[in-house]
Amino acid sequence: MIEVAPASTRIAWIGTGVMGASMCGHLLRAGYQITVYSRTRSKAAALERDGATWAATPAAAAAAADVVFSIVGYPDDVHQVHLGAEGTLTAARGGLILVDMTTSSPNLAQQLAAAAAAKGATFLDAPVSGGDVGARNATLSIMVGGERRAFEALLPIWSVLGKTVVHQGPPGAGQHTKMTNQILIATNMIGVCESLLYAHRAGLDLNSVLQSVASGAAGSWSLSNLAPRIINNQFDPGFFVDHFVKDMGIALEEAQRMRIALPGLATARQLYIALQAQGGGQLGTHALQVALARLSGIDWVRERST
Amino acid sequence: MIEVAPASTRIAWIGTGVMGASMCGHLLRAGYQITVYSRTRSKAAALERDGATWAATPAAAAAAADVVFSIVGYPDDVHQVHLGAEGTLTAARGGLILVDMTTSSPNLAQQLAAAAAAKGATFLDAPVSGGDVGARNATLSIMVGGERRAFEALLPIWSVLGKTVVHQGPPGAGQHTKMTNQILIATNMIGVCESLLYAHRAGLDLNSVLQSVASGAAGSWSLSNLAPRIINNQFDPGFFVDHFVKDMGIALEEAQRMRIALPGLATARQLYIALQAQGGGQLGTHALQVALARLSGIDWVRERST
Repeated sequence: MIEVAPASTRIAWIGTGVMGASMCGHLLRAGYQITVYSRTRSKAAALERDGATWAATPAAAAAAADVVFSIVGYPDDVHQVHLGAEGTLTAARGGLILVDMTTSSPNLAQQLAAAAAAKGATFLDAPVSGGDVGARNATLSIMVGGERRAFEALLPIWSVLGKTVVHQGPPGAGQHTKMTNQILIATNMIGVCESLLYAHRAGLDLNSVLQSVASGAAGSWSLSNLAPRIINNQFDPGFFVDHFVKDMGIALEEAQRMRIALPGLATARQLYIALQAQGGGQLGTHALQVALARLSGIDWVRERST
Repeated sequence: MIEVAPASTRIAWIGTGVMGASMCGHLLRAGYQITVYSRTRSKAAALERDGATWAATPAAAAAAADVVFSIVGYPDDVHQVHLGAEGTLTAARGGLILVDMTTSSPNLAQQLAAAAAAKGATFLDAPVSGGDVGARNATLSIMVGGERRAFEALLPIWSVLGKTVVHQGPPGAGQHTKMTNQILIATNMIGVCESLLYAHRAGLDLNSVLQSVASGAAGSWSLSNLAPRIINNQFDPGFFVDHFVKDMGIALEEAQRMRIALPGLATARQLYIALQAQGGGQLGTHALQVALARLSGIDWVRERST
């Protein structure tokens, strides 16, 4: 197993969206040598200026690295980056550690772990929660599945990227934990939106209501952090509806595979699909309020702005 | 308007269940003269020993008081206590303040306010959240609807009973706020239970999962306080399933009256009715886990104890 330290460890970083760019930047500043690949090179320009080396393909990035990180959009992108014709696994060899931090399918994570093992490499699934703010401030929760030895070897890197880092079990366990996180958020968001719709229709002052309910048994992160934005018609993301619908789809597929019914999550996903149908895919997840209100013929944004 | 102080204010207290007994005890210790009525006299015995005077009917209790509090089980009980043949309103007169702290129907609260006003008295709806622990420690959140002047006159009393006390608006606004609270709890509980079922089926260590998800965007009071009990098969109440089904029924009725659809709450109530059907009415609300698991043919208690 490699010894991971900035002086001796070469990192490949694949995916430089809002999350990836922040995280890769932390590793650069910590002194790691980084090769970067991104579907759109312009998104890596700032990292290149800060010292990262561009690679033309995921395979080329992996060939130049001891540890490869990816954080891209959808499971199909993860598949392409690692299993595609120019994917990292074409450059895999003994000792290489591959880490996917995309929120993706547990099943795919298990496939990737097997494919990596066949080449003597190790694959870890390590999705995160905490959003763009968590990535920027390195306060992410990182949920890791795969070989414990590789997880432990990367402890110096995890500590640069996040705050709560837990090894959750074998390949796929990181993704399963992230799905657990998303199920909680999805279903609670219905509660937040339904309760605000009820309170609005009942003619209550919504800020006064929050004062009564937010710090007790009804309290949640979403209520404290997103309800005030819902009340004030601020629906910019945060976390995109389109990505959330993807996550809930993965969770429902895995649940079906495991033969468990999740009626709350299924309802949440349907409401979010309605929100997409209404043009809200690029809004924040708390814009569910708009779709829920419209279900009852209520124009939330208009009623709240008068 | 009366001047409310222990030396000069006579209180009637109706309902000495787990909540009421604690709350009435605080007022006794604060020095108020109290007349107590309860359907089952034995439940008032400790309060009588501590100095409360027994009344044979709600009317008799009200006749001897400046302020009447009730906290009973169901809206039918509230109706009986205040509007029944021996109800408090038969003894109502100018200046009397009636306060119902039961979680009950907003619509009934409005009826009671009108009936009280017709006799020159004032009615406040003032349901609470915080449970038996909040009642015992006087940390309740009290949500008040009705005349602001009466609410303000009672400030010395509220401060003995609770910590967060907010005037929410006209008659019914206290109950509407409590319904908002219950909608949040109900729907979030589906999320807590579905996420734990998913994590359990995925073979994860549930305590490790909580470590990853409880302090971020998926976090909630229920997750932090009830998930550990669910994991350890501790389903004693807390808050009874039977009472929660009542509360959700009231919220759904009021929502229908206001012409809003609440699909998450409706799903939650159906799952709780299933739990009642399985014999769980006297368990705590987090026993929803058992009914949700059984929906997928899983015996949660057995699987978690092996």
